[in-house]
Amino acid sequence: MLAEIITIGDEILIGQIVDTNSAWIGQQLNAIGAQVVQITSVRDDRRAIVEAFDEAFGRADLILVTGGLGPTKDDITKHTLADYFGTTLVRDQATYDHLEQWITSRGMRFNELNQHQADVPAGCTVLANRHGTAPGMWFDRAGKVLISMPGVPHEMKAIMTDEVLPRLQAHFQLDRIIHKTAITIGIPESELALRIAPWEEALPASLKLAYLPNPNNIRLRLSSYRGDSKQVTAEIDRQFALLRELIPQHFLGFETASVEQSVAEGLKERGETLSTAESCTGGAIAARLTAMAGASAYFLGGVVAYSNAVKTDVLGVQAEDLEQYGAVSQPVARQMAEGIRRLTGSTYALATTGIAGPDGGTPDKPVGTVWIALATPTETITEERHFWEPREQNIQRASSAAMDLLRKYLYENCS
Amino acid sequence: MLAEIITIGDEILIGQIVDTNSAWIGQQLNAIGAQVVQITSVRDDRRAIVEAFDEAFGRADLILVTGGLGPTKDDITKHTLADYFGTTLVRDQATYDHLEQWITSRGMRFNELNQHQADVPAGCTVLANRHGTAPGMWFDRAGKVLISMPGVPHEMKAIMTDEVLPRLQAHFQLDRIIHKTAITIGIPESELALRIAPWEEALPASLKLAYLPNPNNIRLRLSSYRGDSKQVTAEIDRQFALLRELIPQHFLGFETASVEQSVAEGLKERGETLSTAESCTGGAIAARLTAMAGASAYFLGGVVAYSNAVKTDVLGVQAEDLEQYGAVSQPVARQMAEGIRRLTGSTYALATTGIAGPDGGTPDKPVGTVWIALATPTETITEERHFWEPREQNIQRASSAAMDLLRKYLYENCS
Repeated sequence: MLAEIITIGDEILIGQIVDTNSAWIGQQLNAIGAQVVQITSVRDDRRAIVEAFDEAFGRADLILVTGGLGPTKDDITKHTLADYFGTTLVRDQATYDHLEQWITSRGMRFNELNQHQADVPAGCTVLANRHGTAPGMWFDRAGKVLISMPGVPHEMKAIMTDEVLPRLQAHFQLDRIIHKTAITIGIPESELALRIAPWEEALPASLKLAYLPNPNNIRLRLSSYRGDSKQVTAEIDRQFALLRELIPQHFLGFETASVEQSVAEGLKERGETLSTAESCTGGAIAARLTAMAGASAYFLGGVVAYSNAVKTDVLGVQAEDLEQYGAVSQPVARQMAEGIRRLTGSTYALATTGIAGPDGGTPDKPVGTVWIALATPTETITEERHFWEPREQNIQRASSAAMDLLRKYLYENCS
Repeated sequence: MLAEIITIGDEILIGQIVDTNSAWIGQQLNAIGAQVVQITSVRDDRRAIVEAFDEAFGRADLILVTGGLGPTKDDITKHTLADYFGTTLVRDQATYDHLEQWITSRGMRFNELNQHQADVPAGCTVLANRHGTAPGMWFDRAGKVLISMPGVPHEMKAIMTDEVLPRLQAHFQLDRIIHKTAITIGIPESELALRIAPWEEALPASLKLAYLPNPNNIRLRLSSYRGDSKQVTAEIDRQFALLRELIPQHFLGFETASVEQSVAEGLKERGETLSTAESCTGGAIAARLTAMAGASAYFLGGVVAYSNAVKTDVLGVQAEDLEQYGAVSQPVARQMAEGIRRLTGSTYALATTGIAGPDGGTPDKPVGTVWIALATPTETITEERHFWEPREQNIQRASSAAMDLLRKYLYENCS
């Protein structure tokens, strides 16, 4: 079954927001065996919206639309939908009651604009929005389906999960598409490609390989678009087991596997703990660890040691070493890691000190120079790394590299 | 002049990556007066790519394409481009020389896959890629232009800035589109809409207003698509000045204005400093502050006090208060802020302690409950907030709310 996604909103076309909805919807559709063949973003413009609907109906069986359902005047999707399907807006009482409760319980006024959000095109199926004010709407047309949802990501996600996906599975006879993605870390794309070339050459024709690089890792995806799903899954697993043997130290796991997740799992399994002392990464390692629910089980806390005074006074870095070697140096990284480990009593500690850029580089220590340290109960390991990217990516890469140092240590020192 | 953006890659359609390129390109094109009318994402599939090219050439004068130029076999854009423009691949010596230098200077091997990246369709104009291995390519066709760039965001951005934008300005006679966006904070969308309704009603017909909500703020964009640019700019400025009078305490600034930027500017102007003590936000405030270049001028550092032991031992929170009131409480937030301020000697300190979710809520303190504290030289201000969202948004909102507390303090206590 072929699907398309249409996102509506001037703010997308002039680049004021990044469309993150489409990626999430694409993942969900794939998981139930629907193949997304196009994603289209159009303006808050009646003609552009209608044209996009027409073209998508020509190519696909299912069209998921997000955006343009807010309470304000620039959001025209609902009126356009009513016209498109030859109907008019009517008040939906269940939505009205939900809205009134939802808004007043938050201490806000149930004003006229909110009340209009209970109006929907007659004849559509209303999809309840647990997390917001604009409901989703399901339209049938000659065996095909168009679904409109609000653009606010967590509202759209709840409607998809609660209403859209179960109904789609019941409504369509779906093909079975299978994707599985292995996550690698610490090896550049072209080196990886050469290293695994014999494996890639020997892949069966029914499996399609894709390389997906990002600042933290290279992902390798195998896809199958037909065939018996049990056999295909087994073949994909067999191929990835062969791949893992080729690059054991670079193989992080599957799908959403990340270095922080890998570190979290390793620590939880061992009942061990971590703390952080961050200079150039400025809290990014702590933020990535604590973005995962349950981080308090293994993450005790950390210090963002941006100034030298915090490095000496809180972490106990020697002022002489700061003076002699500079803040971006092996001794300072080492003392930061050992200092925060002492302070928190954690099993391990990670430290970073470097020059994220764009300023602050010297011929000796150019922008992108980072010292990383891992303090363990028995030793402190340090590493010098060089990144060549803008500030944001340098911070991301340094954070990943620090966590990867711990991941490899946990892997090599199995308890 | 009408433009379209086409992003190529299966990884986009199955949702494995979020397309952030289109938003950035949209911003740049708008700034030079090109109007983006559609963004289309298609698979790594020759027919889908060719169809997207044909349709875009039918609607627009300029087509910017990203993706599918990597060194590996799944990237087919370059071959498809050669066929589409009826030509073949030839080696570009300047690109070859750059590649060899770029790769070997990074201690990597200049392998065959990298060498093939110097092959381009004959007749195109090569656009140098300072930051990577795949060059951009400019194709002319009957007065219209198609430009292909790699999908890696910082490589694409450098090619756009260095090569594409200056060439486009020289090549096209561009209309003048003007957008200006005001950023508000601390007021829900429907309340804002009612509060400013008289202003909105009185806007001239030539200006289009859009509401752009996100987890940190609501943005209001005024757009003009024609008219004398000096007059239009003056009228937009006049309208925003009126708006500012309606909501002075919620008006953050323009365009990319963010609460962290506003705090940073306020502190730099006053020569004052900040430190942070974060529990539920887990380093997100520090990470947002240090993501901005030059943060060391005002940000001394912080503590991520995830465990109670770090709260007591490092920040000096009273164990009795933790026991009596719990970690998520006014006294603990207050002592965290005062503790980090004492430890670092900063002018101000911000602290957060709360329940980000999804677990850890109680009837008394449900998920989303956050205490925020601001310690200043003369007083400590605390605030209890409730957010109703998933973990990630609760962390974002709590971070923004904490920084907004300082922003308002700086605004109300002008030196």
